[in-house]
Amino acid sequence: MIIVCKPNATKAEIEQVIERIESLGLKPHVSEGVERTIIGAIGDEAPLRVQPLELMTGVDKVLPIMKPYKLVSRDFKKENTVIGVGGAEIGGKRLAVMAGPCAVENQASLLRIAREVKEAGAAFLRGGAFKPRTSPYSFQGLGKEGLEFMREAKKETGLQLVTELMDPRELDLVVEYTDVIQIGARNMQNFKLLQEVGSVGKPVLLKRGMAANIKDLLLSAEYVVSGGNSEVIFCERGIRTFETYTRNTLDLAAVPIIKKESHLPVIVDPSHGVGLWDLVPPMAMAAVAAGADGLMIEVHTSPEEAFSDGAQSLKPGRFASMMKDLEKIAAVLGRSI
Amino acid sequence: MIIVCKPNATKAEIEQVIERIESLGLKPHVSEGVERTIIGAIGDEAPLRVQPLELMTGVDKVLPIMKPYKLVSRDFKKENTVIGVGGAEIGGKRLAVMAGPCAVENQASLLRIAREVKEAGAAFLRGGAFKPRTSPYSFQGLGKEGLEFMREAKKETGLQLVTELMDPRELDLVVEYTDVIQIGARNMQNFKLLQEVGSVGKPVLLKRGMAANIKDLLLSAEYVVSGGNSEVIFCERGIRTFETYTRNTLDLAAVPIIKKESHLPVIVDPSHGVGLWDLVPPMAMAAVAAGADGLMIEVHTSPEEAFSDGAQSLKPGRFASMMKDLEKIAAVLGRSI
Amino acid sequence: MIIVCKPNATKAEIEQVIERIESLGLKPHVSEGVERTIIGAIGDEAPLRVQPLELMTGVDKVLPIMKPYKLVSRDFKKENTVIGVGGAEIGGKRLAVMAGPCAVENQASLLRIAREVKEAGAAFLRGGAFKPRTSPYSFQGLGKEGLEFMREAKKETGLQLVTELMDPRELDLVVEYTDVIQIGARNMQNFKLLQEVGSVGKPVLLKRGMAANIKDLLLSAEYVVSGGNSEVIFCERGIRTFETYTRNTLDLAAVPIIKKESHLPVIVDPSHGVGLWDLVPPMAMAAVAAGADGLMIEVHTSPEEAFSDGAQSLKPGRFASMMKDLEKIAAVLGRSI
Amino acid sequence: MIIVCKPNATKAEIEQVIERIESLGLKPHVSEGVERTIIGAIGDEAPLRVQPLELMTGVDKVLPIMKPYKLVSRDFKKENTVIGVGGAEIGGKRLAVMAGPCAVENQASLLRIAREVKEAGAAFLRGGAFKPRTSPYSFQGLGKEGLEFMREAKKETGLQLVTELMDPRELDLVVEYTDVIQIGARNMQNFKLLQEVGSVGKPVLLKRGMAANIKDLLLSAEYVVSGGNSEVIFCERGIRTFETYTRNTLDLAAVPIIKKESHLPVIVDPSHGVGLWDLVPPMAMAAVAAGADGLMIEVHTSPEEAFSDGAQSLKPGRFASMMKDLEKIAAVLGRSI
Repeated sequence: MIIVCKPNATKAEIEQVIERIESLGLKPHVSEGVERTIIGAIGDEAPLRVQPLELMTGVDKVLPIMKPYKLVSRDFKKENTVIGVGGAEIGGKRLAVMAGPCAVENQASLLRIAREVKEAGAAFLRGGAFKPRTSPYSFQGLGKEGLEFMREAKKETGLQLVTELMDPRELDLVVEYTDVIQIGARNMQNFKLLQEVGSVGKPVLLKRGMAANIKDLLLSAEYVVSGGNSEVIFCERGIRTFETYTRNTLDLAAVPIIKKESHLPVIVDPSHGVGLWDLVPPMAMAAVAAGADGLMIEVHTSPEEAFSDGAQSLKPGRFASMMKDLEKIAAVLGRSI
Repeated sequence: MIIVCKPNATKAEIEQVIERIESLGLKPHVSEGVERTIIGAIGDEAPLRVQPLELMTGVDKVLPIMKPYKLVSRDFKKENTVIGVGGAEIGGKRLAVMAGPCAVENQASLLRIAREVKEAGAAFLRGGAFKPRTSPYSFQGLGKEGLEFMREAKKETGLQLVTELMDPRELDLVVEYTDVIQIGARNMQNFKLLQEVGSVGKPVLLKRGMAANIKDLLLSAEYVVSGGNSEVIFCERGIRTFETYTRNTLDLAAVPIIKKESHLPVIVDPSHGVGLWDLVPPMAMAAVAAGADGLMIEVHTSPEEAFSDGAQSLKPGRFASMMKDLEKIAAVLGRSI
Repeated sequence: MIIVCKPNATKAEIEQVIERIESLGLKPHVSEGVERTIIGAIGDEAPLRVQPLELMTGVDKVLPIMKPYKLVSRDFKKENTVIGVGGAEIGGKRLAVMAGPCAVENQASLLRIAREVKEAGAAFLRGGAFKPRTSPYSFQGLGKEGLEFMREAKKETGLQLVTELMDPRELDLVVEYTDVIQIGARNMQNFKLLQEVGSVGKPVLLKRGMAANIKDLLLSAEYVVSGGNSEVIFCERGIRTFETYTRNTLDLAAVPIIKKESHLPVIVDPSHGVGLWDLVPPMAMAAVAAGADGLMIEVHTSPEEAFSDGAQSLKPGRFASMMKDLEKIAAVLGRSI
Repeated sequence: MIIVCKPNATKAEIEQVIERIESLGLKPHVSEGVERTIIGAIGDEAPLRVQPLELMTGVDKVLPIMKPYKLVSRDFKKENTVIGVGGAEIGGKRLAVMAGPCAVENQASLLRIAREVKEAGAAFLRGGAFKPRTSPYSFQGLGKEGLEFMREAKKETGLQLVTELMDPRELDLVVEYTDVIQIGARNMQNFKLLQEVGSVGKPVLLKRGMAANIKDLLLSAEYVVSGGNSEVIFCERGIRTFETYTRNTLDLAAVPIIKKESHLPVIVDPSHGVGLWDLVPPMAMAAVAAGADGLMIEVHTSPEEAFSDGAQSLKPGRFASMMKDLEKIAAVLGRSI
């Protein structure tokens, strides 16, 4: 950390800063300029983040130089982390495609969709049994019954399951059924929930919050990994901006940035990212071209009758043709689907 | 809800839309223009929000005309809701000032701060025992011990307590100690938590999320009120924008908007809104002038040693002088402090 | 346009609305519901946009149903517009790649870069002679001398020229030298400048403003086209959001949206979109996969000595290898480079 | 400027950085830590901003420590700048209130409004003769005729005039008529226009752009002041965010920030800031309480017939009653109106 003193800081004020740095177990490195003194604090920056040196008289600015996350960072582990899930994997050569309805609605419908997405090449079935809904009057999900339907669909198709956990009290239940635990965008900074999923042995799909920058997202993953669970998959799903044409603004630059900053895999959810089904295929193509390790796509056999997110769901036929195009893009990147 | 058909929609397509509207228990009202047909759907819009008519062939646009929230709305209840808390109240003539440290750090420090803010005119003591922190390596709060310290401070000063609940499993514990339950910005759309606090008999202070528009905030309150707890206080604390000088962008227009849309009280937290202590007093003045029912202010006796948010905390002396200025602004608005 | 009356609107108030609609040359279509009256106004909506019916007593909401832009819209012209520039074209099968330095710095450097980008497959040379700089103390461009250097580079390489116009008084000068006139992001709503370039016979490259939504961008193009110049090329170059890792947030969904809404071509500038050279290639790949008609890329032989935007400039070698990868992506989309 | 070297930077790489710093006329100050070397560059930072040291091998980060603006900064001039305009002043004890229609529509209407706002206590008449409109089909202003009407209104009422300049070619015309030249939000980074108004002897009202942070705004003012015209008035008028209830998000924290960073006056335009007339009075109150030096308010005698911005215009009666309330808030701050 670098502490820039004010041009008019007194010797005594500078001395106090130095003492504080030393009292926190760091080594000060003083550089006296013509106009002002600059002090480097060598060592672990964490205590300095807590203790706001900015408030000391004589201090003008404090500039951190180290990253606040460790275990998830590329500095900590150079090679890509590949997460195995049943026969499938995330972060390897083959792209992980997770497809299915927004919410699990009933057994027949889920099975129909599962067969279609399996047929088209997906390895994971997504579906919500517990649904975070903006309005208390909207459909809130089938709960445990929905999880049962998902298990049936897995039995028949062999697809790995991805479903959302919203409540720490439902952790055991969700873990019993799912293969990948999804933490939704609205819970990306529900730190209690992050701590809980840090204690289990199932991969965690962590969606980026609507107001979260990439550093925040990496820090939320650090909660999980520092809790003992090193299998985190990032998911870019759009941030909230002034543009209203789309539901969110899909920030695809997050893909190469996360690959640069972290060893963990990153996938993209274009369905929530744009919110309009006809924009999903071009954005899925773009995501793969940008280097994503997979995709999460909403698919429904009758979107016009879906309980939620119908406007952004692809019909199976459109999904299947998109998968064929994605295969070609993947090949250009040296990957498969 | 109004359904605008495409210029080239066929009779059969329009007929299907009409049937769907009727099947959902609504009354269609057809208006055939020269160029296109427009259909009004009279009745409860909720089922139409779930069923995306936009996806039907022949439909161009669907325009909602009713508000998605009910119980919290000014239409539902014309008069202001005033919430009594011990001897104090929120939403009445006297402004509710909640002051104290970001986090409860130790008994002595909390007591010292509590005495100071009481002396300066605050009626509520704020303080976090459970802290939502971006990094897992930051101080996470004292937990139950912190609640004990708060109770002691209340005993001595008579201040009402406000503290944050982060986990549904800690509901009973927090309810036992606090007078007002705070739901933090990061949990504004933690719907399970909202449902829980909807079932208790303590007022809920609901902070606006960093990416939440005002409609979202009202819907989150609707979760609490529809659960049976009608005592919700809104708190504007800034949204996330491209401006980096301040920690957030304090959206003071939210104050008159919430007063217009809802009967529930609204307060402002300028400390988180700006993140820099010297900007807190002018923004507190502005908040009261805009019609806020109260303020939440971070106060610390030694901000430079605070465990969190030191940069935005006022020292007691500055807080006291600000309270004197606020009194004069309040008087202009016909209120007291 | 649809006018939703208040539930308690009187007959007289509704009558006034109807009269106003008729007085503006539109045909009212009244639909009386149980709870409220809804009035459709059939005809040209433009006068109704000027006259705010929202303010009439008895009116609750006014909902526009027509798009505010015409000539640039896909409704107006179904087929893609392909713009010929010298031997090259924009919007056709072959992607238009515009590459070069941010600012023209001197003749030797420009020539060196021009040869390199030509060699790698670009058909256009970009370079700024007039530079919009945030600070008055930054390099402001070489002006006419820079244009001369560009002409020389064109003579030698055959590349078509793209350069920015900032001032209506420099229109003739810039038109004399350049093949495509660039309107920068900061001038996207400089309506006087838009009117000027609407009167000349040179294609206009219109960059999206940092706070402009896609509708605003289309309306700015409408200024140019309604002025008589139908050759406009859109350029997505990132919008301003809370994310600070990148210079801007590249909104690639703009590509398929603009293709859907307009017949005009759209290219992407990943260099400004991300601001960091190592993120440029993955975002260029994504842009092409999303359906962009071309790219604008900053290339410099010694970025560390560039007068501006060095951090986001590719070296020629990296640019050339990226072009090879782009060729393969283009082929998947049925295009060439 | 501080240059943080990479942990693994070689001696030779560090030597190169030092040489570069020296070659730019700065004095390097090297601080060798255990893990990495940090170099301070003492002297004028401007050349280092141009030359991106980040790109040199061995450099990890470059941290600027000086502000990029000078002449407008509080460091440059400690006392508040008070700008005299006819008998009125901006930045002094009395708040500067600028009121009037969005656009000048005709002589009679303008005169009527001018008399009303004068009567209510405004010292300035605002009105647009040249109007920046998002759509080319909207009313673009009366041009010179509008300026004539304003001059007539000044003759009768004694109000000082404020009107917008959009085109450098109209500079002489606008300067001849107006007392304060307004630069609109969309032209805040129209640097050619800023240079032009830097050369005249009339005060410039500089509105904040919709995507401009406060640093950008200060730099735009630096263009004007460095051109020789030191009379700049800042105007906060809202920035673009995801909130759609209001037209923009009024960032009132900009008021105390600008007062802290600059010696120049700052006013607030709540009409554009919120876009809804009933929210204008509370936000005007808040602006004054936050320390603004004045207000710009849209007033129209028949908003429902206004050519533009009717929805955000106050009627004269409402404006007059607001002025009475503002007087009391101003008194609390030790000011008058």
